[in-house]
Amino acid sequence: MRWDTQNLTRFIEAAQGKRPVDLCLRGCRLVNVLSGQIETVDLAVQDGLVAGWGNYDAQQYIDSDGMYVCPGFIDGHIHIESTLLSPAQFCAAVLPHGTSAVVADPHEIANVLGIEGILYFLSATEKLPLDFYFNLPSCVPATPLETSGAHLSASDLCSLLPHPRLLGLAEMMNFPGVVAGVPEVLDKLLLFQQRVLDGHSPQLAGLELNAYIGAGIASDHECTTQLEAREKLAKGMTIMLREGSQSKDLEALLPVVDDQSWPHCMLVSDDCHPDDLLRQGHMNSIVNRAVKLGMDPVRALTLATWTPARYFGLRRRGAIAPGYRADFTLSPTLTPWNPVGVFKDGIEVAQDGRLLLDSSSWQSPGLPASPMKVAEMVAEDLSVPVQEGMLRVIGAREGTLLTRKILESPLTSNGSVIADVDRDILKLVIYNRYSPDRRPSVGFVKGIGLKKGAIATTVAHDSHNLIAVGTTDSAIMEVADAVRRNGGGMAVGNEQADVEILPLPIAGLMSDRPLAEVVERLDSLKAKARTWGSPLHNPFMALSFLALPVIPELKLTDLGLVDVSTFSFVSLFESA
Amino acid sequence: MRWDTQNLTRFIEAAQGKRPVDLCLRGCRLVNVLSGQIETVDLAVQDGLVAGWGNYDAQQYIDSDGMYVCPGFIDGHIHIESTLLSPAQFCAAVLPHGTSAVVADPHEIANVLGIEGILYFLSATEKLPLDFYFNLPSCVPATPLETSGAHLSASDLCSLLPHPRLLGLAEMMNFPGVVAGVPEVLDKLLLFQQRVLDGHSPQLAGLELNAYIGAGIASDHECTTQLEAREKLAKGMTIMLREGSQSKDLEALLPVVDDQSWPHCMLVSDDCHPDDLLRQGHMNSIVNRAVKLGMDPVRALTLATWTPARYFGLRRRGAIAPGYRADFTLSPTLTPWNPVGVFKDGIEVAQDGRLLLDSSSWQSPGLPASPMKVAEMVAEDLSVPVQEGMLRVIGAREGTLLTRKILESPLTSNGSVIADVDRDILKLVIYNRYSPDRRPSVGFVKGIGLKKGAIATTVAHDSHNLIAVGTTDSAIMEVADAVRRNGGGMAVGNEQADVEILPLPIAGLMSDRPLAEVVERLDSLKAKARTWGSPLHNPFMALSFLALPVIPELKLTDLGLVDVSTFSFVSLFESA
Repeated sequence: MRWDTQNLTRFIEAAQGKRPVDLCLRGCRLVNVLSGQIETVDLAVQDGLVAGWGNYDAQQYIDSDGMYVCPGFIDGHIHIESTLLSPAQFCAAVLPHGTSAVVADPHEIANVLGIEGILYFLSATEKLPLDFYFNLPSCVPATPLETSGAHLSASDLCSLLPHPRLLGLAEMMNFPGVVAGVPEVLDKLLLFQQRVLDGHSPQLAGLELNAYIGAGIASDHECTTQLEAREKLAKGMTIMLREGSQSKDLEALLPVVDDQSWPHCMLVSDDCHPDDLLRQGHMNSIVNRAVKLGMDPVRALTLATWTPARYFGLRRRGAIAPGYRADFTLSPTLTPWNPVGVFKDGIEVAQDGRLLLDSSSWQSPGLPASPMKVAEMVAEDLSVPVQEGMLRVIGAREGTLLTRKILESPLTSNGSVIADVDRDILKLVIYNRYSPDRRPSVGFVKGIGLKKGAIATTVAHDSHNLIAVGTTDSAIMEVADAVRRNGGGMAVGNEQADVEILPLPIAGLMSDRPLAEVVERLDSLKAKARTWGSPLHNPFMALSFLALPVIPELKLTDLGLVDVSTFSFVSLFESA
Repeated sequence: MRWDTQNLTRFIEAAQGKRPVDLCLRGCRLVNVLSGQIETVDLAVQDGLVAGWGNYDAQQYIDSDGMYVCPGFIDGHIHIESTLLSPAQFCAAVLPHGTSAVVADPHEIANVLGIEGILYFLSATEKLPLDFYFNLPSCVPATPLETSGAHLSASDLCSLLPHPRLLGLAEMMNFPGVVAGVPEVLDKLLLFQQRVLDGHSPQLAGLELNAYIGAGIASDHECTTQLEAREKLAKGMTIMLREGSQSKDLEALLPVVDDQSWPHCMLVSDDCHPDDLLRQGHMNSIVNRAVKLGMDPVRALTLATWTPARYFGLRRRGAIAPGYRADFTLSPTLTPWNPVGVFKDGIEVAQDGRLLLDSSSWQSPGLPASPMKVAEMVAEDLSVPVQEGMLRVIGAREGTLLTRKILESPLTSNGSVIADVDRDILKLVIYNRYSPDRRPSVGFVKGIGLKKGAIATTVAHDSHNLIAVGTTDSAIMEVADAVRRNGGGMAVGNEQADVEILPLPIAGLMSDRPLAEVVERLDSLKAKARTWGSPLHNPFMALSFLALPVIPELKLTDLGLVDVSTFSFVSLFESA
């Protein structure tokens, strides 16, 4: 809310008790993240803001039964795309967990749709009862080793700067580019020098870290050791302690948070998969995990509320105090924090985990076109003629984005290399989504474990081309085509057209269905893949990172097989 | 410094050791206000910024002999006018004490000169080697009970908003006006709702405090008790712990600073008199006092560096970290902090308390006109015809701005009330400085103690009219006229024209001479007043508050005698 004379006058009158406030929560135990104290108060709300506490007359009273109340949670770093949900469904899913604001990096949709994807997020979140802030993706495309749907230069980003919910530049992953002083990378830093500049610099240290931080980058969420976090913190970075679906660093980093350093720390999720979101929650679950690991409960709550609000300069957020947004949650216990009541802008929006609002009325703007400009699917394109030497096979493993390079003797048929189900050497195919005249690239992968059929997905970091793996060419084409026809998605099936799919019509990355439905469908897909032989907890997740050429050791992109150690393309065959 | 491609590239190269940095301080013990740790490092400086620490080649090396290094001090609330120094001389005076930035409220000069006074401060500080930030005075005039030189409405202030060193609105003293929702007061709050809004709300509490804070006011420097500070802090205010020449609240408030609350606290001076500045220092002295009172040394340093920088949103200031301004001081001991070496923007500017720069080269803009539109001084104007009743006499006391109302029987001569030296009832005269057609107002005061002559000053809060007190009308006119002829100042003298003066040609508030000279002259004036009978440590200070009608109990303004308990004008005579 922006003050004008009229609403400011009304607020001042209400806050000092000259007129009844809108709402009074009687007898709640206020967890004050400013003072660190917990005090039983009658909490007054006026015009969606906290009026204060004290003896108030109100239009409406709610008896808090001595429940604890803390500010709404703020996730300072999340990729909404990781939930597979549209912004509206994301909002409906996280509100009941007590989240009131997120700072999102639309990196994935921007790699598919460029500015159009970012504008979609801005527009789709405009009227939702959650505060969506955005940082602009710094690396689109992420690398020159694959083909993305867009290329965003500093000047492209510039047009979005005036948007009020746009805070700055999202994680600058190209830390080698910063340190090397690559002009187009510096251009982006220069554009945002008076704004938020988030970092991403795993294991960067010493003088190179000095250069990276000195260039203005103010946060990092990639620390995995105390040593790393302590150096970055001492040098001026705010440390985002990440505890997401993908990476869990909280336990390792917890000792870094002490009485002097805590204002420079916050809790973030980074990635939050739909099943985790449904079953564990969002920031509430991270806060509870921090407390379980030994953090003081008030401090844990502070690191999910006040410190992110201050780092991002979010005014009137992150605490419960006069004039602050009336965003808060009620919990019967301090530990664990169990948000049985959730208020946003002074309105009770969720109770006992159920949304009290009708999310079906949250009109979404027209979905953006989901690029699916895939080459015609013909068997010849998937054929791999035998050559001299051993086959370079990507070794996929559960629980890590790292792959190994494995050399295997190829199984051949009629002069072509084919999948060898017995040795779990499956064919991996990537169809470029953005140029129908580009033939698919083909490789081989070990570790997916399918004994029949194929799986495919258009969530394939970071360019999100259509990636499929399977036991036969015809099964691969069947699932890939199902995904193509649906404008994107995840699918499992075989050549008998027995294909099951989770459509992801929003840029091929996100569903427009509610969380429970998405999880149900995803569970079914995973179960089927497991029934068909995959030992992986989530083979779609594993598949989605096989095209990411910034993480070692061997990856396949739409442009070919990449040896990540040398950042170069290599042949499928390695001569002796 | 603003980055461009060229200097950013150079900085990145230097910070990672690809080219020699400008300067390297070898073996200093870095007091890291971010991590709370003290670590011995080689500190590198490039282009006036901290490049980082590590193994650096440098153009210049300085051996730190194991001295401690901490960030430059930031005074988050000071009235420069209280030092009686021009901005340039203030800069020369505080730099050797380790101050690198101040946030000043030009309340006094604005009451004399309005926008012109603020523009003078902005212009006079443009190129000085100290970072001067300003908040715009919120209350010009301070009250309708006296005549000031200007009236600043929200629209007047608006024109200054774009200035890059202008942060927000200075202490909103009119807290009754905020709480009452006075439109012209709210106008100012609305103008600054996205900026800094500093408060001033002595003893405001409960629901009225809720209204004041809820309206957006984010700090307070008027707390005098723990209870008051704790309530304000819990409700969202940053607490400025004041330890100035006038008010000393540090000892009372120290227990409020704890492991959770400290980010919401900072040390400030508010007022810093020239003798204190010369003999005790500035923020260094406040930090040392805090430590002596029991605060942890690193925390005390943090509250004079990082917390003010963050509260005011001063980027790249308040810590020593890559990319931060290379503003720091070296001290041989952590306690006390003794800034024997001071660096500003990477340049050594002071050593052992001596300025290394030639401050005479600091070109000041032309001094603004000092309004001295005083009525012609004639004896008849000072005559007080006897009336019925007892004389209402202002009771001045050492060490407090409060006065008492005293009733005395008047001493008369030829039908007029005259000063009664034996009973220490002296005549008090105020000449309006802004309208030559306005006759002086006349009253009586007890407690100044002069046995001969008179003293006068144009530092007279808050409107800074010409105020004089004396034993005879002719002595009063003699010193008042001396002050008038000098364009303002402080003077002591008698009717034999034996007048000694400290000229204050800048708006009648500030000297253009160096600190040592100002103190020497002021000491001499005070000594003379004491020789002539005044028991007060500083009779000029006492005099300067006798016209301030916002502090009880009885005051004299240019408009007449004010009973502060009723905010109304009263006669010099009280009938039985």
